[in-house]
Amino acid sequence: MPNVLVGQSGGPTSVINASLSGVVDSASKSKKIGRVLGMRFGIEGVLGDHLVDFAAEDPQVLKSLRHTPGSALGSSRLKLKDDQLPAVIKQLKKYDIRYLFMIGGNDTMDTINRTVKYAAEVGYELTGVGVPKTVDNDLFGTDHTPGFPSAARYVATSVLQAGILARDMQKVDQFVIFQTVGRSAGWLPASAAAARYQTGAPPHIILFPERAFDREAFLAAVKEAHRKHGFVSIVCGEGIRNADGSPVSASQTTDKFNNVEFGAMGGTSAAMILHRIISQEFGWRGEFQVTESLQMCAADRSLKLDVDEAYRCGAQAVKLALAGTSGVMVTMHRTNGKGESYAIDFGTAPLGEVANHERPMPANYITPDGFGVTKAFMDYINPLVGNLPQYVSLATKKSKA
Amino acid sequence: MPNVLVGQSGGPTSVINASLSGVVDSASKSKKIGRVLGMRFGIEGVLGDHLVDFAAEDPQVLKSLRHTPGSALGSSRLKLKDDQLPAVIKQLKKYDIRYLFMIGGNDTMDTINRTVKYAAEVGYELTGVGVPKTVDNDLFGTDHTPGFPSAARYVATSVLQAGILARDMQKVDQFVIFQTVGRSAGWLPASAAAARYQTGAPPHIILFPERAFDREAFLAAVKEAHRKHGFVSIVCGEGIRNADGSPVSASQTTDKFNNVEFGAMGGTSAAMILHRIISQEFGWRGEFQVTESLQMCAADRSLKLDVDEAYRCGAQAVKLALAGTSGVMVTMHRTNGKGESYAIDFGTAPLGEVANHERPMPANYITPDGFGVTKAFMDYINPLVGNLPQYVSLATKKSKA
Repeated sequence: MPNVLVGQSGGPTSVINASLSGVVDSASKSKKIGRVLGMRFGIEGVLGDHLVDFAAEDPQVLKSLRHTPGSALGSSRLKLKDDQLPAVIKQLKKYDIRYLFMIGGNDTMDTINRTVKYAAEVGYELTGVGVPKTVDNDLFGTDHTPGFPSAARYVATSVLQAGILARDMQKVDQFVIFQTVGRSAGWLPASAAAARYQTGAPPHIILFPERAFDREAFLAAVKEAHRKHGFVSIVCGEGIRNADGSPVSASQTTDKFNNVEFGAMGGTSAAMILHRIISQEFGWRGEFQVTESLQMCAADRSLKLDVDEAYRCGAQAVKLALAGTSGVMVTMHRTNGKGESYAIDFGTAPLGEVANHERPMPANYITPDGFGVTKAFMDYINPLVGNLPQYVSLATKKSKA
Repeated sequence: MPNVLVGQSGGPTSVINASLSGVVDSASKSKKIGRVLGMRFGIEGVLGDHLVDFAAEDPQVLKSLRHTPGSALGSSRLKLKDDQLPAVIKQLKKYDIRYLFMIGGNDTMDTINRTVKYAAEVGYELTGVGVPKTVDNDLFGTDHTPGFPSAARYVATSVLQAGILARDMQKVDQFVIFQTVGRSAGWLPASAAAARYQTGAPPHIILFPERAFDREAFLAAVKEAHRKHGFVSIVCGEGIRNADGSPVSASQTTDKFNNVEFGAMGGTSAAMILHRIISQEFGWRGEFQVTESLQMCAADRSLKLDVDEAYRCGAQAVKLALAGTSGVMVTMHRTNGKGESYAIDFGTAPLGEVANHERPMPANYITPDGFGVTKAFMDYINPLVGNLPQYVSLATKKSKA
């Protein structure tokens, strides 16, 4: 009987192991499949001959994998070169692999795509299906990507809590900046808007990689938010850029003696530069929060919806492959859009299409001023982020003596 | 009947509103007390005549306050000057305040202390009791401070999750640095060690403000951890210092052309400097995580133990005051130390003592190399952090073909 090989690639999400569980559980149950093997450290484990047999793993561990963060098989960002394809096929032959599954983003889909195509060229029968994964939510052809809802909830929860704190500390600190991951797409910073239903206001300003950073317009928005609310809550994507295309994180800033402080040396962050710009313009105290990959692994804050969808995407990939479908990635489509009636159905997108496209925020999701999101986006995001914690505010009306 | 005035001061914790609830609930129930008033933005609300009457607040809001982050009355860091004391007493007289409660740290205890002493000097009868609060855990005279357990759990949970991610991403990134708040005491970075019971290893290196930063010893420890584990997990306190007393966060680093990059300009962080030092020494990729005040407001990660203790500290302050005790802060003492049999009892410490002392980590809580914690510390911290989420690891044993 043919064997299965599954791998995880790129940065983790809180639910990428749920997708792995979906693949492993479905493949293990199938009577058409022999062994279920995993790649240690993605494609590096194939090239380096380190495959893992799931039959040798503790069944209790496999059961709990669904709620464990990280990429349990180990991950890789190695870009497969064309001259490495023969070595990959040699390994697949050695282990009699006929079904190939990889859980990842654009680059991963490209890896499966080229492997499946090369296998066909050399006459090796191979079925390959991709399972979508990314916190950035920028994968083409799917309503959203497993891992994004949990990361979005982490962002919205953090901004909600930090916004309450900033409001209460406004006599001390005047602003707070939260930086999200996501180099080229603004889905994660946008998700912070889910905090608003409670706080009324924070975040006041959202900066998207899709819009060029305009220092003057930004400072005017900061000033106005401070006038209205007494403090300012800002969320920025890590990859925001200036009009000339240069990253804001690499901007030069100068101290009071006009000495250059931070340059294009790496190790800085967009939030830190914004912090500096505001401090210098207004003389305010404030802080920047750079949580980096904590957004990708906070499993205690992951959504059941996300864990379930991630698992089902894995299972769906096996179902498709056993039905003879190859060269596609599993996609999700919203069959019912809003609130509690939210539901999805599965589809497919060709691997080549996914590999070659990105998916930035649609223009109608960003307000014309470039600092907020529209109702259309809120309809999109609310079912994915779910209900945030319920907090209260005192009226704090001035009492008479 | 005499009235009560309560205020919140300094940086918030996830549970400072629980302490406020404890004071308000107990005072409101007492038949010896008239009105229960709150300071809007701490002592600034007293000087600026903005007091809040809790009888005018929505009872549902008051009920939910216990689980809401931030400082619901608004906070302040204003240091009361001696020449402002007459104005404070004038306000207390105006509202017929005879019981004064403030929830805060050293500076707050100093404020109550001086106010109570000045009131006695001018013959105004006033009872003042402090309620302890700080995530840093550096308050004198108490086993720990409400707010610290929840912040410690936030740190340990983050480092646990990020450590799993870093292990699985070691083919891409070689190190991760998590920075905690706490300028002068290492209780929070130390708490990250609670992550170890699961991961076996991360965090590999902890840097305490109590120990001078030794660049060579640090780099040797980083190299050794990388050799052993394939990646390095580091936790540092924001306030770590060099041997000459200068903050590591203000260290100068140089780029490859020997240009100074970061200096003592503010806006940098210790974690960023460590990131730079490691990148330059080993040429590795890695990331730094600076979560700042998110550690102080992540109410969804707060512990029931912490919420309950914070509430009880507030109630205890009212009990003490009604019994005629003044000029003290409520303290907690561990009557039963370890694990599930953990229990505390209440005591008091003189406000002047609390105001004038700090509480760094005891020497026997830090390992001789200065990079880890001892079993004595683990016995101290485990009941406070509680059980962390349970995650699993695959064996990933190499399979045969």
